[in-house]
Amino acid sequence: MNQDRLAKVRANLRNQGLEQALLVDPLSIWWLCGYYTEPYERFLALYVPAEGTPTLFLNRLFPEAGGACEDVRTFSDTDDPVALVAQVTDHAKPLGVDKELAARWLVPLMDAGCATTFSLASAAVDDARSIKDARERELMRRASATNDAAMEWLASQVRPGVTELEIADGLLGEYRRLGAQDHSFAPIVSFGANGADPHHGPDGTVFNRGDVVLFDVGCKQDWYCSDMTRTFFTAEPTEHQRAVYETVRRANEAAEKIVRPGVTFAQIDLTARKVIEDAGWGEYFTHRLGHQIGLVDHEPGDVSATHDEPVREGQVFSIEPGIYLPGDIGVRVEDLVIVTADGCEVLNHYSKDLTVLTV
Amino acid sequence: MNQDRLAKVRANLRNQGLEQALLVDPLSIWWLCGYYTEPYERFLALYVPAEGTPTLFLNRLFPEAGGACEDVRTFSDTDDPVALVAQVTDHAKPLGVDKELAARWLVPLMDAGCATTFSLASAAVDDARSIKDARERELMRRASATNDAAMEWLASQVRPGVTELEIADGLLGEYRRLGAQDHSFAPIVSFGANGADPHHGPDGTVFNRGDVVLFDVGCKQDWYCSDMTRTFFTAEPTEHQRAVYETVRRANEAAEKIVRPGVTFAQIDLTARKVIEDAGWGEYFTHRLGHQIGLVDHEPGDVSATHDEPVREGQVFSIEPGIYLPGDIGVRVEDLVIVTADGCEVLNHYSKDLTVLTV
Repeated sequence: MNQDRLAKVRANLRNQGLEQALLVDPLSIWWLCGYYTEPYERFLALYVPAEGTPTLFLNRLFPEAGGACEDVRTFSDTDDPVALVAQVTDHAKPLGVDKELAARWLVPLMDAGCATTFSLASAAVDDARSIKDARERELMRRASATNDAAMEWLASQVRPGVTELEIADGLLGEYRRLGAQDHSFAPIVSFGANGADPHHGPDGTVFNRGDVVLFDVGCKQDWYCSDMTRTFFTAEPTEHQRAVYETVRRANEAAEKIVRPGVTFAQIDLTARKVIEDAGWGEYFTHRLGHQIGLVDHEPGDVSATHDEPVREGQVFSIEPGIYLPGDIGVRVEDLVIVTADGCEVLNHYSKDLTVLTV
Repeated sequence: MNQDRLAKVRANLRNQGLEQALLVDPLSIWWLCGYYTEPYERFLALYVPAEGTPTLFLNRLFPEAGGACEDVRTFSDTDDPVALVAQVTDHAKPLGVDKELAARWLVPLMDAGCATTFSLASAAVDDARSIKDARERELMRRASATNDAAMEWLASQVRPGVTELEIADGLLGEYRRLGAQDHSFAPIVSFGANGADPHHGPDGTVFNRGDVVLFDVGCKQDWYCSDMTRTFFTAEPTEHQRAVYETVRRANEAAEKIVRPGVTFAQIDLTARKVIEDAGWGEYFTHRLGHQIGLVDHEPGDVSATHDEPVREGQVFSIEPGIYLPGDIGVRVEDLVIVTADGCEVLNHYSKDLTVLTV
């Protein structure tokens, strides 16, 4: 059990007026006690009381807990895990529950009278997970270094006749060769006007020389996620294309320049947005500027105009402005940054200079 | 809206004493009204009253509903979807909820007093989804035909020096060439003694001539899943290896032979299990015989010794006996079957004869 992390979660729970919580997000459980399994439809939970030892509930089909937690209660497929939980919760107090807890468990927990009331307690964990410690920052640097190297490989795959899917399907093998274990999200590979749909899924579209090529990709390496976007040209860009590209790049860099503790997420979003608005493409930047990231690619607390909280040292998020002109061109330039004591560290080092690939 | 399917779900809800339900499983929603999107952390739900028109709740960021549902209520990221649901539910009656409904929605729905009580209603939909109609059976046949063809490709990839991961990572591209869209689950590729762990994840293990090779793979094609296992030899098997293989194969075929409406899931499991027990390896067949399958690879209602319900025409499930001898050998042989009026149709046609690959 990581006592620092546990203390942070407990302090956050107290601020919510909660003296007990039941966590089920497998990554939150891993982050607190170092035990991980993907439970699928089976029950996996960590009960966190205000004081004393947390209790880990494990199906016997799961891997054993080792020393992850002092108090482990195991059960089989024919036992009722809800009855086990009811033995440890304080029925006379409210219980905070994970936002991911499925009705298949929450309804029986309520029927068993495990607590006076049930309220959402995920924010207590999400807030604590949001601040990365030194070890986590190092792992995020490494995952992004792998992503930088993968971008070299992606750029080398662009050739007449190749399809978006062929490149996307080859990326996992490259990530593995580079030391990562998986994608952190389904890769986006867009040729030509497909780039104007920010969530275009790679398909059988064939590359033709001259197409603008957009890669938005990320890996998972030693638990932590990377996420980066680069947009390439494959013929000398027109003045219009160059202007779109340089506007997006300036928006990305302007936002990265102002990040420091105390600046709000909204101010960062608006800084990038203003560059694009001033260039006349404001209505074509159709999404928030970014999202926090860590054990999953999208963590709570986005970089958007409506998020007025100040950023804090140790938070990691994406800066990903874009301009999407339907039927014409889509450009996005994205880095991850870690908030430092007096600014930010940009985790991606792959060049953002306008690049024309030789294909 | 598919009125036949809706009528079946409503009849099942009535049998549970429910006059209204809120469904959130995206595939159940697709199955009922033909609308699909993956909502991630956003709210997507179909409200099904006992009579009248169901209501589909959609975030405006989702694809539009087209004609999928007559009554569609849309909302933005800054609206409260729970308040919208509260406008349509009958607050004076119980509400059945999907087992997948996350606490992030269920807790606020309860706080808003949307119903007198909340109970689990997924069985009403799961039961209806379990019986495949003619169109669904045809799609399941095609997905398994693709899987048969993919098994040819997998067998052709076995050569000295190749790793489990290299073959596993290449399979998605092959599925796509064959007309499927995705894996139905993470493929299992096991060399040598790795096969003795029934859930071995493919890793950097290198193939050596003589290794037993096990492939347990499935694709998703036009929404429906396939799932098949074959085990190959790569040198003339020893008598012990041959005995293990032929026992598993006989267990698979004995179970397939007795499938017909009215026979229970437990009887099918026990038929295969008896073949393996009689051969002396009973304790090494460590899992249930199979699982139902359809829009996802594991659907509720397994083929196990504790499932006493009779199988019904139109149900589709796996028959996958195995023998796992730690440090020695693992063999599994798996087909999918559709229950017919007087027996079953085996969906996989890839040979189950003991095969020695030339590598």
